[in-house]
Amino acid sequence: MPHFSVERRVQFSETDMAGIVHFANFFRWMEEAEHDYFRSLGLTIVARQDGAVHVGWPRVAASCNFHLPLFYQEIFEVRLTVERLGVKSISYQFELWRGDDHIATGRLKTACCRCGLEGIIESIPIPQKYLDKLPKLDE
Amino acid sequence: MPHFSVERRVQFSETDMAGIVHFANFFRWMEEAEHDYFRSLGLTIVARQDGAVHVGWPRVAASCNFHLPLFYQEIFEVRLTVERLGVKSISYQFELWRGDDHIATGRLKTACCRCGLEGIIESIPIPQKYLDKLPKLDE
Amino acid sequence: MPHFSVERRVQFSETDMAGIVHFANFFRWMEEAEHDYFRSLGLTIVARQDGAVHVGWPRVAASCNFHLPLFYQEIFEVRLTVERLGVKSISYQFELWRGDDHIATGRLKTACCRCGLEGIIESIPIPQKYLDKLPKLDE
Amino acid sequence: MPHFSVERRVQFSETDMAGIVHFANFFRWMEEAEHDYFRSLGLTIVARQDGAVHVGWPRVAASCNFHLPLFYQEIFEVRLTVERLGVKSISYQFELWRGDDHIATGRLKTACCRCGLEGIIESIPIPQKYLDKLPKLDE
Repeated sequence: MPHFSVERRVQFSETDMAGIVHFANFFRWMEEAEHDYFRSLGLTIVARQDGAVHVGWPRVAASCNFHLPLFYQEIFEVRLTVERLGVKSISYQFELWRGDDHIATGRLKTACCRCGLEGIIESIPIPQKYLDKLPKLDE
Repeated sequence: MPHFSVERRVQFSETDMAGIVHFANFFRWMEEAEHDYFRSLGLTIVARQDGAVHVGWPRVAASCNFHLPLFYQEIFEVRLTVERLGVKSISYQFELWRGDDHIATGRLKTACCRCGLEGIIESIPIPQKYLDKLPKLDE
Repeated sequence: MPHFSVERRVQFSETDMAGIVHFANFFRWMEEAEHDYFRSLGLTIVARQDGAVHVGWPRVAASCNFHLPLFYQEIFEVRLTVERLGVKSISYQFELWRGDDHIATGRLKTACCRCGLEGIIESIPIPQKYLDKLPKLDE
Repeated sequence: MPHFSVERRVQFSETDMAGIVHFANFFRWMEEAEHDYFRSLGLTIVARQDGAVHVGWPRVAASCNFHLPLFYQEIFEVRLTVERLGVKSISYQFELWRGDDHIATGRLKTACCRCGLEGIIESIPIPQKYLDKLPKLDE
């Protein structure tokens, strides 16, 4: 069972001259689903403190297997599953479906970081306020 | 006479299913030429101070007239002219050429701003260190 | 009175290092509103015939004035008005609002074209099936 | 030894509000390096015949591990290696470097396809004219 699901429509600017969705957009869509998921939990991906980005979630790894092409204007569903909740990172799996057609399977691994001024990014344990809302997983 | 010129190649991800460059990319290209121009003058578009963005150049207006389509892999030139140097803003004109084909004419008006924390953006007179390098224009 | 209105949320990938929405995205949003509008009329922006793009709507001109910055996660409304319905072109105006804040005013002029193979694009009168659904305007 | 290498500069529109390059851009950069590589061999990624896309290279899989963040205006190198040349597919590895800093490692697997009208995409053996130019690999 996915932990979250969101529906979306392919936009014209997301297609390329091959007439299908350009593959890099799949990564933006996974991120949008991740952010919608955080929002659905009452969390935000960008928590600021004193104007500097305080807690952020930069990417450690991203991947996608493309099973079928997607076309302009089609509606698809992104199903998000939290695959692993580590001490300092979250790993998500994403399944993209257009009706009964399995379009793609993707993954994002994202690290919880303290993001200071001058681009300093330091990995930290996920704060309790996030853990309180994220699913408890059997490892 | 343009004040600056830069050459670039159309990338696959910049095309759309109509087989031509998607129009929104022209605005990214104008910006890239603007930033290359600043760099050529020894200036930077993003001057930080204590980690907060200090002087930035948000857009006031942007426009483009499209004369001819551009296709994948084509090489084109962006010719930048400083049209107006105001007290608090700069207006640029951009001409895009593919060889002798006039592809597009665009404009950007950009305001010099003090950009503080929490998204505060305040228009300021262009600092002298920029004026020293930007062209003197007859009004 | 606008002819159409659509709501949308700012995505993380649409922001830039200045902490606000990158201006080129406003042009993608205008296009998305335009395509949603066509869809609401039972029309499509990409009508194919025998696999070749048959009738398309390439841009003649695009412009935007930016009044206020937009930030991550904010919800805004795009209000579309058909400003002019020409023999061979449509001109739209777009007003972007975040609640009572007027964010931006944009315009797109788009030409009705027969788009053949090999990138041939030829301006044509707007076919009757489009005129039947588009608003009758006083000139 | 990589088979090809290309240098590039980070553009402003490729950053996000975290102040670093948005991760989805890494996939566009891998693709740009792949296309530059094809071009360097006298090949093109988009070979048309009678106006319909004839031979294309849609993505089967894409992945990236992010080691270090990249910032605005930085210059980086993309080193492409052909990892596997299959009967119907090519697998590339990409290493991104900023000077001596190893920024990211990515992979693309791309299928050789006959791309017909109406979005029909069919996997085919890589034609001899491509094999003549691509590197002979020990499996």
